[in-house]
Amino acid sequence: MATTFAVLGTGGWGTALAILLAQKPDHRVRLWSAHAESAQSIQNARENQRLLPGVRIPNEILITANEVEAVAGADCWITAVPTAFLRQTILRFTPQQTRNVPMISLTKGIEIATFRRPSEILQELLGTANVAVLSGPSHAEEVARGKPTSVVLAAADMGLALWAQERLGTERFRIYTNADCVGVELAGALKNVIGIAGGICDGLGFGDNAKAALLTRGLVEMTRFGVAQGADPATFSGLAGIGDLIATCFSPHGRNRRVGDRLGRGESIANVLAGPQVAEGVSTSRAVFERTQRMGVEAPILTAVYQVLHEGKSPLAAVQELMTRSLKSERTG
Amino acid sequence: MATTFAVLGTGGWGTALAILLAQKPDHRVRLWSAHAESAQSIQNARENQRLLPGVRIPNEILITANEVEAVAGADCWITAVPTAFLRQTILRFTPQQTRNVPMISLTKGIEIATFRRPSEILQELLGTANVAVLSGPSHAEEVARGKPTSVVLAAADMGLALWAQERLGTERFRIYTNADCVGVELAGALKNVIGIAGGICDGLGFGDNAKAALLTRGLVEMTRFGVAQGADPATFSGLAGIGDLIATCFSPHGRNRRVGDRLGRGESIANVLAGPQVAEGVSTSRAVFERTQRMGVEAPILTAVYQVLHEGKSPLAAVQELMTRSLKSERTG
Repeated sequence: MATTFAVLGTGGWGTALAILLAQKPDHRVRLWSAHAESAQSIQNARENQRLLPGVRIPNEILITANEVEAVAGADCWITAVPTAFLRQTILRFTPQQTRNVPMISLTKGIEIATFRRPSEILQELLGTANVAVLSGPSHAEEVARGKPTSVVLAAADMGLALWAQERLGTERFRIYTNADCVGVELAGALKNVIGIAGGICDGLGFGDNAKAALLTRGLVEMTRFGVAQGADPATFSGLAGIGDLIATCFSPHGRNRRVGDRLGRGESIANVLAGPQVAEGVSTSRAVFERTQRMGVEAPILTAVYQVLHEGKSPLAAVQELMTRSLKSERTG
Repeated sequence: MATTFAVLGTGGWGTALAILLAQKPDHRVRLWSAHAESAQSIQNARENQRLLPGVRIPNEILITANEVEAVAGADCWITAVPTAFLRQTILRFTPQQTRNVPMISLTKGIEIATFRRPSEILQELLGTANVAVLSGPSHAEEVARGKPTSVVLAAADMGLALWAQERLGTERFRIYTNADCVGVELAGALKNVIGIAGGICDGLGFGDNAKAALLTRGLVEMTRFGVAQGADPATFSGLAGIGDLIATCFSPHGRNRRVGDRLGRGESIANVLAGPQVAEGVSTSRAVFERTQRMGVEAPILTAVYQVLHEGKSPLAAVQELMTRSLKSERTG
C-alpha cells in the first residue's frame, strides 16, 4: 500500500526532501507552500527556481497551497519551515490534525522568545508526541542532485525512528537513528552560532589550524550547553553535532558563515545585517548567551560571538582574548 | 635562568617549533639535522628553503648535525622525526642520554612493524618515562608564520604537561593539556587513514554533505579503535582527534588527502604511490586493518581505505558499499 507524505514548506530543504521521497514508487508526495503564487510558479515550472534552480520536480509530486489538500489522509507530515515561521505555519494546520499522525521535523533552530525546540512547538500546537527530528550535514542542493549524504533521525519512540529510517533512506541518503531529540535539535541551533565564528576566522585570514581548533573547541561548548539542557553528550560527536558543524563552517554558501566572514573582513555589523535574509545564528547567539549566563556554563566562543554581534566588540580583539585565556586542560577548558 | 631546548629534526614541524621557542628571550634553542649538508644549507640561508620557504630562522638558533652539540646540557629534547626514521634517529642519541631529561614528541604515526607509538619508542630506547606528546591541527607553515594555532599536549606526568604548556605556549600558540598519551598518539596515526578517505571523497566530486559525514563516521571508528587500545574516548572529540582530522581533510596540502584525491579521480594506485614522499596513511592503513580484524572492531571506513589501497577495490564501489550497509543507529553503527 502506498504511503502518503505531506511536506510542509517549499524552501530548498523541503523541496529536496519531497524529490527524494518521490523516488520510491510506493510513495505519494504532496508539497505545500505557504503562498499560492509560489505554489503556482513551482507548479508551472516544475522547478523551485529561486532555491533549487536546475533541479526538476517530478510530475508525481502534488504541489499545493491548500492546507486540506496537503495533509488530508497523509500518513506522515514533514515540516520544513524556518523556525521563525514554524508556529504561525503550524497554526494553519491545527484544524486538520485529527489523529496522532507521525511527524518529522526538518527545522533547525530554536524559537527565540520561548527557547522551544521545533519538535516542542509541534507537540505544543498539535498535541502529539509522535515527532521525529531529522538533522545532520545536508545541504539541500547536494541532496536534490543525488550527492551522497548521511543524516541522523531522532525520536523518543524508536518505532517511529526505524519506520522513518526505512522510508526516507536511499542508497544516496543514509539515515542513522538516535534517541536523543534534545541533543539533535540543540546541536542544529548552536552550530549556527559557531558557524558565524568560523566565518570570522575566514574573514580574518586565519588558516586551517585556527579553523580546526575553533570547530573543536566550539564543539566542547555546544556539548556543555546541551548537557546542561538534558542532552546526551555523544550526540554532539555525531552527525547533528560535529558533522553539521563541519558542513556549516566549510561550505562557502552558508548564511551564518558568510555573516562571520564579512565581519572578519571589517564590514560593519549594521551593514552585514542589513540584507533581507538574516542568518539564524544572529538571534540564536543572543538567546544562547543569556542561557549560558543563567546556567553558569563556561562558553568563551559562544560569548565572543555574542559580543561581536551585539556589543560591538572587534573580531580581532575577541580572538586575542580567546587565545590568551588562562591555560586549560582539554577536559576542563 | 635560561631553558635550553634541543629540537631533533629539521622537517617543517621541527623547524617551525624551534622558531616558536626562540621567540622567548629566556630560551636557548638548538636545531639538529640528521644530515650535515642539510644543516649547513639551513645555516647558510637561515631558512629551511625546501620545507618552510620564506620563513627566516633567527640567528639565535644553533643549527647543527652533531648529536653532542645538539643535546649536551639541554633541559628538554623535542623529537620531530617521521615515524619511519624515529628509531634509527634516537639510537644516535642514546649515548648522550645521561639523566631523566624531559622529552616532547612531535611525531605523528605508528611504527608499522611493532605498532608502537612514538612515545613508546622513546621510552624503550632511552629508558625514560618523562615523555610528553604534542598533537592537534598544526600545519607547520601556519605556525611558522604566526597564524593562531591550538594544540594538545599530553603526558602521564601532569607536572611535565604543565611545565611544557607554560614554556611552549604563546599568544598565537595555545596549548591544552591532556593526560591521555595513548589517545593523542593513536588519533595522530589514525587520522592519516581517514585523511585518505577524505581525499577520495574530493576526488570523486562529492560535496560537503558527504565529506562532513565521512569525518563524523570516521571519528566514530577512530574512537572505537582507540578505546579498544586503552584510550579515553573524549580525546578523540578533542584537538588531536576531530581537530587534526578536520585540518588533514580540508587542507589542500596534506599528503594523505592528496593520495586519496588522486585515487578518487581514477589514477592507478601504482602511479599514486610512485612518488618519493609516500603518505604515512598508506602503511598505517594496513597495520590498522590487521588490528581491527584481530580485535573485532567494526570499522567499515578504515576497512574500505585498506581495500582501495591494498586490494585494488575501486573507490566508487567502496563508497557504494558504505552507503548501503545495513541500517544502523548512531551509537552502534
